[in-house]
Amino acid sequence: MRTTTGWQVDGATGELRRTPLERRDLRPDDLAVRVDYCGVCHTDLHAVRGHDGAAGGPLVPGHEFTGVVTGTGSAVTRFSVGDPVAVGNIVDSCGDCPMCRAGQENFCHTFPTLTYGGTDRHDGSTTLGGYSREYVVREGFAYALPAGLDPAAAAPLLCAGVTVWEPLRSLDVGPGTRVAVAGLGGLGHLAVKFAVALGAETSVISRSADKADDARRLGAQGLVVSTDPDHVAAARDRFDVVIDTVSAPHDLAPYLRMVAMDGTLSLVGHLGSVSVEAMDLLVGRKKLSSAGSGGRPATAAMLAFCAEHAITADIELLASAQVNEALTRLGRTDVRYRFVLDMSDLDTGPAAR
Amino acid sequence: MRTTTGWQVDGATGELRRTPLERRDLRPDDLAVRVDYCGVCHTDLHAVRGHDGAAGGPLVPGHEFTGVVTGTGSAVTRFSVGDPVAVGNIVDSCGDCPMCRAGQENFCHTFPTLTYGGTDRHDGSTTLGGYSREYVVREGFAYALPAGLDPAAAAPLLCAGVTVWEPLRSLDVGPGTRVAVAGLGGLGHLAVKFAVALGAETSVISRSADKADDARRLGAQGLVVSTDPDHVAAARDRFDVVIDTVSAPHDLAPYLRMVAMDGTLSLVGHLGSVSVEAMDLLVGRKKLSSAGSGGRPATAAMLAFCAEHAITADIELLASAQVNEALTRLGRTDVRYRFVLDMSDLDTGPAAR
Repeated sequence: MRTTTGWQVDGATGELRRTPLERRDLRPDDLAVRVDYCGVCHTDLHAVRGHDGAAGGPLVPGHEFTGVVTGTGSAVTRFSVGDPVAVGNIVDSCGDCPMCRAGQENFCHTFPTLTYGGTDRHDGSTTLGGYSREYVVREGFAYALPAGLDPAAAAPLLCAGVTVWEPLRSLDVGPGTRVAVAGLGGLGHLAVKFAVALGAETSVISRSADKADDARRLGAQGLVVSTDPDHVAAARDRFDVVIDTVSAPHDLAPYLRMVAMDGTLSLVGHLGSVSVEAMDLLVGRKKLSSAGSGGRPATAAMLAFCAEHAITADIELLASAQVNEALTRLGRTDVRYRFVLDMSDLDTGPAAR
Repeated sequence: MRTTTGWQVDGATGELRRTPLERRDLRPDDLAVRVDYCGVCHTDLHAVRGHDGAAGGPLVPGHEFTGVVTGTGSAVTRFSVGDPVAVGNIVDSCGDCPMCRAGQENFCHTFPTLTYGGTDRHDGSTTLGGYSREYVVREGFAYALPAGLDPAAAAPLLCAGVTVWEPLRSLDVGPGTRVAVAGLGGLGHLAVKFAVALGAETSVISRSADKADDARRLGAQGLVVSTDPDHVAAARDRFDVVIDTVSAPHDLAPYLRMVAMDGTLSLVGHLGSVSVEAMDLLVGRKKLSSAGSGGRPATAAMLAFCAEHAITADIELLASAQVNEALTRLGRTDVRYRFVLDMSDLDTGPAAR
């Protein structure tokens, strides 16, 4: 086995603690990746908060990271040592089912192997995530990081980015499309950047008028203040696509009313059980959908688009030792717009081995 | 005022009772229609059961009927006395809002005037429905009944028909589309006929294998028995469109699992509050929608399609005096597939005036 260091949930305190970790020896199609930057996703917060102490097995979060290839298995063909790479939230899938064959590994019928908290298909071990200095991944689930993209600010593209890219592309957002993005956090700010770059007329939906400057800076043409009745009335039936990135449970009816005839409300933030009045879909022939993650072709296309349009996330870069602070602040949505952990501090200090 | 006879809910017993009714004198754009046949819709049953006795105002159900023009207002241009006509569940709308201008009067921003239980836009009276011998309607909301369609079996097209026509058309069902229809009642049997005539590969989803013969007779190629695990497994991700006509509240997850990648589950039966797991939409990028009623262009197109393909409802024709029996039997889904009331018995007997 290979050894590295990472941030693992401590069963007693529920905090992340710097811990020595083992990685598998390279299989023929594996890459060893030095993790340089790892984004802090809401999923990480849920996983840490929901972790069942010692009984829950080891938990090392992190599923959007960038780094550099430091080793290659004997059969690796697409990468060499020194290549900059990126890894997202899935690291394997069956490869045989209709979804995998369609390039939608994220919908694999046997469920894709998650980057952390998943079960490795070969040795049955629990996968440990990117809050660590090294990750070992099948080359097929690593992406070449395009030159010109800052590796720290690119890390969140691998989960937050592809999550909003998928619905924007599958709903054919482009010139002539009217898009609104509800919630301006990690997902939302990237959705705005993508929609603008795709040529759509783009608005932000926010509870507060304070977001006007941010919305404009991100390229949005409009801001709908959802607590202002005049704004809400003017937004009725107005958007072909509403991307709902709000992560807490909430009433969908106000957003559905802003969807235009034959338009779609796409949920990407809160992915639990949701309720709608069928009449709110019926009137205007509206659709409800949901998205999260993406397949390999979509992820690669998203990265190419980002390189072409110079899109990365707006981040706050913290030393990885500040990971607990990052999660606490994320819990109160005190971040603009994504925390990224710099893993280089794991090379020094007491627990590095 | 004009006088006629109809079946009105009796506040004391909750039963429908033969009652003299008044109709307005013809306005310039009005038609007087002798109602010959009126379908019995689930909405009628809900309205009768939910009616608040004497306090609820007069209730005469019926919103899918055919008949003959017996009088025309001074400005009527499209119809003459003697013309066979059909009327559906809306009889007026604002005509000015974006939905009306788009030919989606059913989504009128000021709410369309319903055929019964609505409020007339001119005199403020409560509209009384088609369980009566005469109806007065704006010519713009009457449809020419195509020659060749049996007027009794055509009556259900005006509500049940257009309700399933709308989602099939808006979802581009045709050759190459795989469609499943859940529930084989008034809505479902018409959805099967339409989908088959549109060229789709069409299946029925039913709890019981007993429906196999009926499904085949209606033109369906397949039957998915939703209580058979083998059937359910084989139907996974299989249908581009699932039309859910089940009228009682039910779990949507089993139907969502049968929807193919990028496909749609369209609710047309139960139109209350519905819950779904966002993950059941996310995995396979599926959509939830709902439909009911239709605008004027869609209704006219549906009637033309029915004439071309000789499609009418499979009905049980009853004398209108059997209306209470029809509603009781409908309540236990004891009908194949739609009751239609023959209104000619209202011309004779004690209460006809």
